[in-house]
Amino acid sequence: MKQLMIDTATTRLSVALSEHGQIQAEATVMVSKNHAVTLMPMIEQLMNAVKWTPTELERIVVTTGPGSYTGIRIGVTTAKTLAYTLQLPLVGVSALHLMAAAPNTELPVVALIDARRGNAYIGHYQQNEAVTPDRHASVAAWLEANITGPFVVVGDVEPFRDVLASYDYTEAPAAHSYGRASDLVALGDVTDDVHAFEPEYLRLAEAEAKWLEGQNNG
Amino acid sequence: MKQLMIDTATTRLSVALSEHGQIQAEATVMVSKNHAVTLMPMIEQLMNAVKWTPTELERIVVTTGPGSYTGIRIGVTTAKTLAYTLQLPLVGVSALHLMAAAPNTELPVVALIDARRGNAYIGHYQQNEAVTPDRHASVAAWLEANITGPFVVVGDVEPFRDVLASYDYTEAPAAHSYGRASDLVALGDVTDDVHAFEPEYLRLAEAEAKWLEGQNNG
Repeated sequence: MKQLMIDTATTRLSVALSEHGQIQAEATVMVSKNHAVTLMPMIEQLMNAVKWTPTELERIVVTTGPGSYTGIRIGVTTAKTLAYTLQLPLVGVSALHLMAAAPNTELPVVALIDARRGNAYIGHYQQNEAVTPDRHASVAAWLEANITGPFVVVGDVEPFRDVLASYDYTEAPAAHSYGRASDLVALGDVTDDVHAFEPEYLRLAEAEAKWLEGQNNG
Repeated sequence: MKQLMIDTATTRLSVALSEHGQIQAEATVMVSKNHAVTLMPMIEQLMNAVKWTPTELERIVVTTGPGSYTGIRIGVTTAKTLAYTLQLPLVGVSALHLMAAAPNTELPVVALIDARRGNAYIGHYQQNEAVTPDRHASVAAWLEANITGPFVVVGDVEPFRDVLASYDYTEAPAAHSYGRASDLVALGDVTDDVHAFEPEYLRLAEAEAKWLEGQNNG
């Protein structure tokens, strides 16, 4: 099965292609200034590199946040548009789940996206399964409530180094510390199995609802 | 320090950019039909994505094989040309060492590049250090001589599944089972420390010598 995977939930822009569960091509830019302008060309370049045409695609996987509303809107809208026009199934995966897959460790992984003033979006995963649900919370309070043993931390570590100092944490090496769309090859399959499509669509709808709400308030 | 990393030692084409030890951008195509045509455009696209100019580069890291002579020649020649024209230090890293870094595991990793008739280029690494030197050998004989405990295998596993069957091995998950140029961010630094540049230049020269030898014989 030929699959397109997209992660634009943060400042990172990441795209990957897989076939029969094997990665065929991937590209990641850590700080992309304009996802709207760069996402489709990146998809096109990878498709050209492996000589695939859009009609050969069989499934699309996209991160549905949390993260940057702008980033999520662009990734999800692109994925939904492609899925609609090509009539493909669309699978959503938590951006924190994707980040937590990067170190490929047996230890629990805490994935952090800084949300200012000591808060973060926090993911807590172990071997591709959620240990606790994704949260927007005070990192200090969350760590105290949820962490007992050693863990690996990925994402925005720097703002939380003081709070982390009293825990038994390690950081993943630089090349294994950030979300790559290619890791969706495993996570998208997990999500697909059971109650996959509807809840994922719901989550997409929620992101859109929040956006509309923001527009009306703003 | 702004660093360009290149791996074209196999059919894979992989390029990454790092600054201060953090990955800024990367792209990998698993089966690239023509490295000579695709390598420079891929470097250029990544440089454009992060808005770097060639003169900002401060170091180049390249895999020096083993693998495909054609791939190695293109990667090493491109890296040497850039290093020469921009007057940058050039660091060489074993392509097997790069592959072995992919699973980010504490277990020993055996990296295999199929060399036909039961033989392979074999790398044996643990936590970014060589356990035994890279070898071109019969996989069956090599495993018997070198392996006692559990290990992770990456690379060309399929041709050696029968021989591997009597060992305690695991395979890295799909997205953590192949060499990415971004892993050179750690390996290039290791190489850099001590007796770095001269031995690495020697290895480059050796690859070229072999190529010339092949040309004269052929």
